[in-house]
Amino acid sequence: MTGDLYITRVRPMGEAATSLTVRGGRIAACGEVASPGVEVIDGGDAILIPGLVEAHTHLDKTLLGMGWYRNEVGPRLIDKIENERAEKKRLGIDPARQSARQAILSVSHGSTAIRSHVDVDTEIGLSGIEGVLRTSETYRDIVDIEIVAFPQSGMLIRPGTVELMEEALRLGAHVVGGLDPSAIDRDPKGHLDVIFRLAERFGVPVDIHLHEPAELGAFSMELIIERTRALSMQGKVTISHAFCLGMADQDYVASLIDSLAEARVHILTTAPASRPVPPVKRLVEAGVVVAAGSDGVRDTWGPYGNADMLERAVLVGLRNNFRRDDEVALALDTCTMGGARLMGLEDYGLAPGCKADLVLLDGETLAEAVVNRAPRRIVIKGGRVVARNGQALIEVA
Amino acid sequence: MTGDLYITRVRPMGEAATSLTVRGGRIAACGEVASPGVEVIDGGDAILIPGLVEAHTHLDKTLLGMGWYRNEVGPRLIDKIENERAEKKRLGIDPARQSARQAILSVSHGSTAIRSHVDVDTEIGLSGIEGVLRTSETYRDIVDIEIVAFPQSGMLIRPGTVELMEEALRLGAHVVGGLDPSAIDRDPKGHLDVIFRLAERFGVPVDIHLHEPAELGAFSMELIIERTRALSMQGKVTISHAFCLGMADQDYVASLIDSLAEARVHILTTAPASRPVPPVKRLVEAGVVVAAGSDGVRDTWGPYGNADMLERAVLVGLRNNFRRDDEVALALDTCTMGGARLMGLEDYGLAPGCKADLVLLDGETLAEAVVNRAPRRIVIKGGRVVARNGQALIEVA
Repeated sequence: MTGDLYITRVRPMGEAATSLTVRGGRIAACGEVASPGVEVIDGGDAILIPGLVEAHTHLDKTLLGMGWYRNEVGPRLIDKIENERAEKKRLGIDPARQSARQAILSVSHGSTAIRSHVDVDTEIGLSGIEGVLRTSETYRDIVDIEIVAFPQSGMLIRPGTVELMEEALRLGAHVVGGLDPSAIDRDPKGHLDVIFRLAERFGVPVDIHLHEPAELGAFSMELIIERTRALSMQGKVTISHAFCLGMADQDYVASLIDSLAEARVHILTTAPASRPVPPVKRLVEAGVVVAAGSDGVRDTWGPYGNADMLERAVLVGLRNNFRRDDEVALALDTCTMGGARLMGLEDYGLAPGCKADLVLLDGETLAEAVVNRAPRRIVIKGGRVVARNGQALIEVA
Repeated sequence: MTGDLYITRVRPMGEAATSLTVRGGRIAACGEVASPGVEVIDGGDAILIPGLVEAHTHLDKTLLGMGWYRNEVGPRLIDKIENERAEKKRLGIDPARQSARQAILSVSHGSTAIRSHVDVDTEIGLSGIEGVLRTSETYRDIVDIEIVAFPQSGMLIRPGTVELMEEALRLGAHVVGGLDPSAIDRDPKGHLDVIFRLAERFGVPVDIHLHEPAELGAFSMELIIERTRALSMQGKVTISHAFCLGMADQDYVASLIDSLAEARVHILTTAPASRPVPPVKRLVEAGVVVAAGSDGVRDTWGPYGNADMLERAVLVGLRNNFRRDDEVALALDTCTMGGARLMGLEDYGLAPGCKADLVLLDGETLAEAVVNRAPRRIVIKGGRVVARNGQALIEVA
């Protein structure tokens, strides 16, 4: 396949119907006449959007396809972390196989780019990184997978982990991950200094899980912003979860949002219903990039998740009390443009010259397409059809 | 149809497979041999649960099937109420037709009983009540619909509304509704005295929308509990939404929960992600009946909702941070047993003698069936199959 297509009757972002010419895997033009011999797809008046972006998940440890996991885990964060390390061995969770399963599920739902945090610890070593790297290579033509080296079990508290993080980056991980500098690693300065030093050495972005609540999380956020400025890493740093931005002290929240915007630190939300969350509209209005992700999909942490970024847009909308059509479109934006900006995807969008990563959605308007979550009519990656009617055209190798 | 069935290979509540004999619309026995000539359904090892219960919705004003409604409504509660009254006329929302559409959608998803609040106000008068009564009569063999006379636009602040509420109850509404005694009607004592007087006169239960936050809502809740006790209406009163039970003051919440349990006042949650919510597990552990509902489905208030009570169970689970299998089963329980107890449904359940209102679900366990939300395999009402594979067998008349 050359990545040439001619798509009739599509409505870009829900606007008036037109045709789309794709040449060499990129959008060539709208409204042209079809070239002879090129594959024609009837868009059937579907809405056309750029590929959905899954900007935060854990491909290496989903239990998809492994039979139902009966969850009897205790309530604390540390219970979940320790249970998972034990279950990885017991259940034989194969990172390559499992990441392939979830990646293909994502593609079936219209995601064309994925950022996956992948566990690095002193028990499994780099097997997670190696497995997801293999998946990213095997399926490179149907989805872009970016790998974050993620010290899930803590870093400074488990000697040997920093060296494994370095090795993960040498192997090809694209981003340095971090985790609750105070709550898990018990040393916010130490944790963040190591993370940012690795980022500087390897010239890679940073993406830190920050579950710490309220004033504790806000302190960690300040430390992250300070380092982003000091190392001129504006635009290269993401704070995932950022529950502290949902805290009660609105003056403090406002000052944090200003600092995030000024230092161009991005925010990733999974819009959990049971935790305080970053206020999406206020952040976007302040100029902060906000993206969304599924977080874990069917893993030992919890049974939910289906890797469908339209469903995630619904959850972002429900969590933020988005009811108006423009608000639902903003929820979708976190799952498209916001994710693309967070991941630094080049040539993303619907303009001529952009990569032909596209999804055709059923619906009269963008908001209807989001709330309906109908099976995606067609998903296109680099000008090739990779899924139809909710089914990926490729199976796990 | 006589309501006789023989269902093979079903797993009641996910337990060991058995057969189920249905005679005259009721469950006769498990594990019997089939009688000659009776219709046999192969359960295919599906999970068997009693019919789902939609315990709080607004059948009269869904916009299902009416084209996409572009929501541009303002942020305040009163904006939504006033916008809706205007749009009812402009859009021509027909309560009979619309309630039928949603009721049939509910049936397709496995709901066999619905409590619907239905607007009563001085502009539309009783047309909502009449329309939903017509639907409840027309579709009585496929779903039980209970009607709450609901003063959506306020009661005391709009003279003439109390008389319409009385008339609604005379026409056949089954429950007296109420709404934010302080925030909307500006007179908590006055509002509740009228509501409870109507309940006493007509011998009907009470179900009050209480959106009032924190200490204000808690005060209204105390007034409701006082009247429940004084009129010996234990077990006949529901507080819907009850956001005040999600407030910060945990000692106050604990004392309210004790009082609710003692007065046998039920709680209905729609588990909204953007508001404080009643803590389901604590309430259930204290002995309070907790049920769940979709609230509005695709109306002028908001675009969400699909009348699927398995999806509602997922939202209850996500909102309450339910991760363990026993917790997900509890979320489902609010959509089955909890709803049945709230509505006072007789002979509900899977025991011999119970009405044969049944749903066959795909899944290895109850938790998997909930999170998958697969199309319902079979829905049975009074011993008759009313939906298969997610499709109702009846269309809007």
